[in-house]
Amino acid sequence: MALTLEEVCTDALKETTPSSDERRRVLKLAEKLRERVRAAAEEAEIDAEVRVEGSVAKDTWLREEPEIDIFMRVPTALPREAFGTICLEIAKKATESHKQVERFAEHPYLESFINKTRVNIVPCYRVNQGEWISATDRTPFHTDYVKSILNNRLRSQVRLLKRFMKGIGVYGAEIRVGGFSGYLCELLILHHGSFTEFLRSIAEWRESRIIDYEGHYKGREQETRKIFVEPLVVVDPVDKGRNAAAAVRKERLDELIVASRAFLKKPRREFFYPRETVPYTPGKLVQAITTRGSAIVFVKFGTVRAVPDILWGKLYKSQRSLRKMLQRHDFNIIRDHVWSDEQNLNIFIFEVEQRFLPLVKKHLGPPIEKKEECKKFLQKHAGATSTISGPRIEDDRWVVETKRRHTNIVNLLDEKLKDGGRRVGVADLISQAVANTLGILVNEEIAKLYSSNVEFAKFLTEYLEGKPRWLLLIDKEN
Amino acid sequence: MALTLEEVCTDALKETTPSSDERRRVLKLAEKLRERVRAAAEEAEIDAEVRVEGSVAKDTWLREEPEIDIFMRVPTALPREAFGTICLEIAKKATESHKQVERFAEHPYLESFINKTRVNIVPCYRVNQGEWISATDRTPFHTDYVKSILNNRLRSQVRLLKRFMKGIGVYGAEIRVGGFSGYLCELLILHHGSFTEFLRSIAEWRESRIIDYEGHYKGREQETRKIFVEPLVVVDPVDKGRNAAAAVRKERLDELIVASRAFLKKPRREFFYPRETVPYTPGKLVQAITTRGSAIVFVKFGTVRAVPDILWGKLYKSQRSLRKMLQRHDFNIIRDHVWSDEQNLNIFIFEVEQRFLPLVKKHLGPPIEKKEECKKFLQKHAGATSTISGPRIEDDRWVVETKRRHTNIVNLLDEKLKDGGRRVGVADLISQAVANTLGILVNEEIAKLYSSNVEFAKFLTEYLEGKPRWLLLIDKEN
Repeated sequence: MALTLEEVCTDALKETTPSSDERRRVLKLAEKLRERVRAAAEEAEIDAEVRVEGSVAKDTWLREEPEIDIFMRVPTALPREAFGTICLEIAKKATESHKQVERFAEHPYLESFINKTRVNIVPCYRVNQGEWISATDRTPFHTDYVKSILNNRLRSQVRLLKRFMKGIGVYGAEIRVGGFSGYLCELLILHHGSFTEFLRSIAEWRESRIIDYEGHYKGREQETRKIFVEPLVVVDPVDKGRNAAAAVRKERLDELIVASRAFLKKPRREFFYPRETVPYTPGKLVQAITTRGSAIVFVKFGTVRAVPDILWGKLYKSQRSLRKMLQRHDFNIIRDHVWSDEQNLNIFIFEVEQRFLPLVKKHLGPPIEKKEECKKFLQKHAGATSTISGPRIEDDRWVVETKRRHTNIVNLLDEKLKDGGRRVGVADLISQAVANTLGILVNEEIAKLYSSNVEFAKFLTEYLEGKPRWLLLIDKEN
Repeated sequence: MALTLEEVCTDALKETTPSSDERRRVLKLAEKLRERVRAAAEEAEIDAEVRVEGSVAKDTWLREEPEIDIFMRVPTALPREAFGTICLEIAKKATESHKQVERFAEHPYLESFINKTRVNIVPCYRVNQGEWISATDRTPFHTDYVKSILNNRLRSQVRLLKRFMKGIGVYGAEIRVGGFSGYLCELLILHHGSFTEFLRSIAEWRESRIIDYEGHYKGREQETRKIFVEPLVVVDPVDKGRNAAAAVRKERLDELIVASRAFLKKPRREFFYPRETVPYTPGKLVQAITTRGSAIVFVKFGTVRAVPDILWGKLYKSQRSLRKMLQRHDFNIIRDHVWSDEQNLNIFIFEVEQRFLPLVKKHLGPPIEKKEECKKFLQKHAGATSTISGPRIEDDRWVVETKRRHTNIVNLLDEKLKDGGRRVGVADLISQAVANTLGILVNEEIAKLYSSNVEFAKFLTEYLEGKPRWLLLIDKEN
């Protein structure tokens, strides 16, 4: 018998809430790290207020992936460069003997792993509210704000929502995902009161919505439409000029909306905990590709040195440019995508209807009323070596059939990318890697790479299935 | 040295004006036939007024193709059926011992050939102006009207214009051409005064134009826009409710406009007398087709019994329906055309970018705001055997990739046409021939038929060149 909404939520909550032992372990570790950072700062003679922030501070973390954020609030007198030098040194000292990765997004910080628990040690300025200098100066205020309001019931609701968002793939404000941050989940729960109330509300989404929990714009809601351009606006309680949902891409919002509807209609554990994707066998892969009858073109290249947010930003930008370039050359794109292991391998995917286009290409000329343009058009095309046939009149304008410059998508991509592709909009950051390590594969030519990289294999399997994981359940029942 | 406009026109006029001997011969033959028809009518006890009409009566025929029209104006008391019985008998009697073809367009008449001169014997009613019963009742009034105004100079201008229109392929009001009738040419010369004045005027064509030589709508020109919908309106002097240019298709008008510009810029004999098309050799044909890289699909079928105007009307209608059907199935049509020998062979041509489409087809579903439609869409497509991948969200709507039913244009056409194609809009009149004699050829598969039919070979050569004949001259100079 199917479980009720309440039963499914209760089970999921039980599963994702840390046990007392786990909670104790994480909090103890967090406190220990806080103390170490404090001591290291003191030793370095930096007057830092060191605090635990984020989901651990707010008790809203999911047991599957605890992540400890330690913030060092330093005096504003300290120059910005110090974040990447002295502050980083302090962080390294505090976690010495553990695996460490320097991260430089808009902001340098240190990521380290202690018994598989990710720890971020982040510097920021100790400022008054509203006098922000660096991007992370707001975080302590977020923590304080949320802690002052959340109670046990609300914390559970936050955990449920975060787990749901993870399950359907819309959790995380990083560029790669373009989804919902933890803080945003907390604000959504504050506003709607519960997980299911939020779901019911988002399921009825229409066009755009503004959530202003603190009423910063009370009585002048119209104003917000001039300030914020995003479809979902959640005014940050600690900064009325900031949309806490600014990172949410419409695609992720849409996915949340339809998943909410499906979950409300038929609640299931798998929305919170989807089944792991089992990659197709190589045989099934080739069959799945061949069946489509399209041309799936893989553009691969190697190492780009950049933090994930920067890398993904550039990958997405380059993908858009290449998509437009292919469309300008009349390739009909069915779908395009980008995959990266964020280290040594990056792959653009362009699936097009046809690998080859006919040589003949119909080129529309001016309407015949435009005498001067017609004259130029005829001068250019009548008898030209590029002309296959015409010019002739069609629907009140001159048209001509000319020779297409590129009839093979592989040759086109190769020509445009072999120098790095800057001229066709490939981002500077990645064009060097493109120039040096470009490889273009079509359809089953990807099989070897597929077999050697399980993460990519999962990705490509999901690409070929081409649907939200939760839809797999509905498929079977249809 | 290039000839002037005047010189070119003088030469062309000399060439196309019948000599005194020719004129005498034609007029003598016309008068003889008129008398024979009169005698045959008398013998049949039909009170007919028998007259010579058309270009011979008006002295505006071209020496290359004299055509004698004899009209029998019969009393309105005679039932309409008599046109096809007694009137036809009279006509047959008058031309017995000569080749005869019964023609039944909107109106039955007899066509016969006397020493290669085409003779049409046409019945109509002897009515007062404006009290038209049958479609040809206006003709005697047209003849009288034009004869009463034309002088020698104007007759020459009419001949020049008709010769020019023939030369560029826009002469003739029959459905196949959709061009300018002889009477229309006469009215255009009356209005503009001369061939070159008309050309200068039409070269500056903008959107639409109304010519009302008799001023039927003087002071209320706006009214005409409600009565006539065609871009070119030439109010018939003998019937203000009729547009003498109603048969002119926009395509022919456009061709006249651009040819006029080109002629005025560089006048040449070839506009009046284009060089005969020399069909490509079979080798060159195959090469020309292969170079294009497209798929030229020939849909051929045999004898359809119908007079040309009816046949072409149905061919064009069927062509439009098939074009739409192919487009609905995602075939990208570069150009389509129809050819017929008006007797035993009819050929539709559909040139498409690709003979084969990929099996996968992206199908756009509802925008996600439309909850009910989304529900139905998911029910239909999630897990369906027709689904290749998806459904997924793209640009705020559900999309799914489904299996295309038809990936091969030849199979598609064969499936839709083997029963005659009525369901896809093939006209009843021709569907029987389609069902019985359908053949579908692609690209060089046409070579055999091409080699066996010189008229079709000329047509296909012109198709592949794909431009007005006069542009060939300009090509060479470019």
